Amino acid sequence: MNAMSSPLLLRTLFERAVQYFPHNEIVSREDDNVFRYRYKDFGLRVRRLGHALEALGVRRGERVATLAWNHYRHLELYFAVPSYGAVLHTVNLRLGDEDLVYIVNHAEDAVVFVDLDLLPVVERLAPRLRSVRAYVVLDSVLPSTRLRPVFAYEQLLEGSRSDYAFPTVDENAPAGMCYTSATTGRPKGVVYTQRSLYLHTLTLGLADVLAVSEYDTILPVVPMFHVNSWGLPFAGVTMGSKLVLPGVRPRPEDLLRLIESERVTLAAAAVTVGIDMLKVLAEHPYDISSLRYLMLGGQATPQAVMEQYWLRYGVPIFTAWGATETSPIATCAHVPRHRLTEGVEGRIAVHVRQGRVVPGLELRVVDDNGQDVPWDDRTMGEVWVRGPWVAREYYRDLRSRESFGDGWWHSGDIATIDGDGILRLVDRKKDLIKSGGEWISSVDLENELMAHPDVAEACVVAVPHEKWLERPVACVVLRGTSRDEESAAAELRAWLANKFPKWWLPDRFLFMHEIPRTGAGKFNKRRLREELRSLAHEW
Amino acid sequence: MNAMSSPLLLRTLFERAVQYFPHNEIVSREDDNVFRYRYKDFGLRVRRLGHALEALGVRRGERVATLAWNHYRHLELYFAVPSYGAVLHTVNLRLGDEDLVYIVNHAEDAVVFVDLDLLPVVERLAPRLRSVRAYVVLDSVLPSTRLRPVFAYEQLLEGSRSDYAFPTVDENAPAGMCYTSATTGRPKGVVYTQRSLYLHTLTLGLADVLAVSEYDTILPVVPMFHVNSWGLPFAGVTMGSKLVLPGVRPRPEDLLRLIESERVTLAAAAVTVGIDMLKVLAEHPYDISSLRYLMLGGQATPQAVMEQYWLRYGVPIFTAWGATETSPIATCAHVPRHRLTEGVEGRIAVHVRQGRVVPGLELRVVDDNGQDVPWDDRTMGEVWVRGPWVAREYYRDLRSRESFGDGWWHSGDIATIDGDGILRLVDRKKDLIKSGGEWISSVDLENELMAHPDVAEACVVAVPHEKWLERPVACVVLRGTSRDEESAAAELRAWLANKFPKWWLPDRFLFMHEIPRTGAGKFNKRRLREELRSLAHEW
Repeated sequence: MNAMSSPLLLRTLFERAVQYFPHNEIVSREDDNVFRYRYKDFGLRVRRLGHALEALGVRRGERVATLAWNHYRHLELYFAVPSYGAVLHTVNLRLGDEDLVYIVNHAEDAVVFVDLDLLPVVERLAPRLRSVRAYVVLDSVLPSTRLRPVFAYEQLLEGSRSDYAFPTVDENAPAGMCYTSATTGRPKGVVYTQRSLYLHTLTLGLADVLAVSEYDTILPVVPMFHVNSWGLPFAGVTMGSKLVLPGVRPRPEDLLRLIESERVTLAAAAVTVGIDMLKVLAEHPYDISSLRYLMLGGQATPQAVMEQYWLRYGVPIFTAWGATETSPIATCAHVPRHRLTEGVEGRIAVHVRQGRVVPGLELRVVDDNGQDVPWDDRTMGEVWVRGPWVAREYYRDLRSRESFGDGWWHSGDIATIDGDGILRLVDRKKDLIKSGGEWISSVDLENELMAHPDVAEACVVAVPHEKWLERPVACVVLRGTSRDEESAAAELRAWLANKFPKWWLPDRFLFMHEIPRTGAGKFNKRRLREELRSLAHEW
Repeated sequence: MNAMSSPLLLRTLFERAVQYFPHNEIVSREDDNVFRYRYKDFGLRVRRLGHALEALGVRRGERVATLAWNHYRHLELYFAVPSYGAVLHTVNLRLGDEDLVYIVNHAEDAVVFVDLDLLPVVERLAPRLRSVRAYVVLDSVLPSTRLRPVFAYEQLLEGSRSDYAFPTVDENAPAGMCYTSATTGRPKGVVYTQRSLYLHTLTLGLADVLAVSEYDTILPVVPMFHVNSWGLPFAGVTMGSKLVLPGVRPRPEDLLRLIESERVTLAAAAVTVGIDMLKVLAEHPYDISSLRYLMLGGQATPQAVMEQYWLRYGVPIFTAWGATETSPIATCAHVPRHRLTEGVEGRIAVHVRQGRVVPGLELRVVDDNGQDVPWDDRTMGEVWVRGPWVAREYYRDLRSRESFGDGWWHSGDIATIDGDGILRLVDRKKDLIKSGGEWISSVDLENELMAHPDVAEACVVAVPHEKWLERPVACVVLRGTSRDEESAAAELRAWLANKFPKWWLPDRFLFMHEIPRTGAGKFNKRRLREELRSLAHEW
């Protein structure tokens, strides 16, 4: 026995929260209503769910899948499944059928909890799901369904006592699971442990990270099937925050209304959602002044978007970087002490970057030879991360060896690092454009394009080129009504020429109604590249 | 291999700090000067110290003792010794000779680092220290001394390269050590591990605990030989705070001058030091407005002291509770969300109590049968704590079984707990006064006495009584010049009678010039009881 050896378990955080914050609220949007209850009732229902999992025959270590939006029942599963000693597998409901079937079978999920509006998806796929022994519909009563055996969530809970005693498991036991899309092939599984979830949760509470507090009112817009909604449900409950869950398919108006009415202090969403909210705000003046931080992620926040929130609405944008493999928070924006005198301009200049590695993790930016690049903010390299909440492998996947080495996860993200150790993502390794032996950052071009007042969205990808190997093409969604494409292209080219060398300028500007997105809501560059590759032959 | 398994090491926190905060300052008082340097230089010197420890023949896991005040060289040892894989044993320099000899021999310290002004102590004891192979004087040049072999700290560093590569050790390896005084017998040793120091450090950074930040300027007055100065040197460096170390035997004026000139945001000291600073402030108006928190501990902060800081100077008092066995932070004051509307009076009412258990630990208040007491703020019980930074045993000590059971540390502190789970310490189990089958809290009486404007200090202890078993006696230090003791006693008795039942009132009031203190600066109640026991025969 060593001197101090209690295990790091999510259960400890949960039990403290419901015991010490019985009055604090959890709010969950349901169509045009909001459902409200308190931590005390939340805690009792989580314990009921413990009995229900036992009644369903779930064994310790088995995977329990959810196909669900952000709502209170999903939150109950977030705490009940790991506390029970099983593994919460949050399935990305935006994936295609083949990927869904693959991951449920690969994870060998024993039970699937599914939202009513996603029931058709599960019914369609059920005959191909080999390991699933039961389905639970996240609703009060059982709808008509072909699934068997199938239960209604509320009926399961009603039939269970509210006193389940969660076990003490090994801290290295698996507790959560998430699949991440791969450049080639099927999604890859990342397993979170009791310990990694516990440590990541504490990290979000650090004053110099997200400072999650009992006094916060947190709106996690980022889906709970997307890297645990960046850890906010775990951190929020642990600290006793009021939680506001946006429910099924929230529109930007729904989010803004919740921020205004519930006095949200911390919201987290994909950059694209942040852009959509700005469009609505331009038409309708919701009060978002309660926000101490709007956390945007999934891709770099364009400077123009950041400036609008910060300077026009007084809402600071919080930037962080991470991935499924890093639980996800690995870096976060934080103005260095010696730069505090630079004012809001200086703060924005720091926050458009991805920040410094958080305490407890190690980070390197390395060149092709595995050597650290200098902190000169010019030399590009791949970001590597290592630490107690960074994956060391993919779940039962031979592709692990391509991405991990000596404990380091090789992120595939290309970045520079400045004299203060602040990371600036340049691009995905696979999205960088290699033109004539030099690298062009698609992200830098996109940010500058989106800073143009007429541009709503911009996405730059490589197309093959005989002489230069690759050349950039810009796909642009213009604001407002149609205009002459030729003059728009000329104007945007001139706009970029102010900032970038001539050989960086896109060969073509393609104007679209919308840019295709991935299941995670990011620009789908792979698909764009494929479409443009065929187009390029015609040019 | 499990999915995420990097060890929790202090080295990781240190290396990140010196790499990412090279500009940030460490300030150390030296007589009337302040020594200043930056994290970058601090880091290089810590690495030099790594080579020096190797040159001294220190082996991984061996104990390295310090007899030192709070200064930058001690801070270097704080990080170098554990990062090297050895155990930092901070010796309480206020202990008597016999205890000092006992603990150095019991810990089997291999090397002793000693401040110049404490050299006479070590010279006197050296012939009896069986395990010590070398002495290092924490100064630039070697003074005349009989110690052998002996080195000057700065000469050791000058002779070492600044590139020591610290090893990766097991996270459960011992990293620190502290002895705590015992009710009977010699001090008992508590061992901290890499993991426990790492987790405790992160906890101090939580927004709802101490919120230690890069933007803080931290003055740890509590000695670095007293439970790692409550963890502040570790947390401060980890977050990149500016540190202000008060040096050798700082007087209250020195502390106030440092707070004013360095713009300290967070200071931590014994309650008695806080009281002494108030006395100086009454005479000389130092500017302490930069303090966002003054953390007082070691004993309960009297309400009157808290109100003076808070209402007169605008400085909130931060309360926490813990012990050598809990690293030490186990609970801390935090106003529950549903009581935020109560204003400053409500905040003070919460902060005079010891607070709620911090995230990650478990806490119980139990009666004599080991059952949890109700959260009614009336029923008294003993505080038990369990968790990843709570000791499970004393180092090689048979007395462990008296204080530990099933992972729980039995603190010996008696408390009540209110409806919000907020602890209120009533007394030490051994200091409670058992009068006629009922309990009287010595602490409650002391607080009320110290709220009287004429009382500077008060200490209430039990004396044996034939009929009632025990009865309380109050030892009082009056403010200002002498006054008639009989009328003072009558006035204080009337003062207490307003608040407590008649049978609580002390049988006698003894007026003193000062109250005897323990090595840790607390009232020495054991000694007072012994002295009064003999006096009582004469009454």
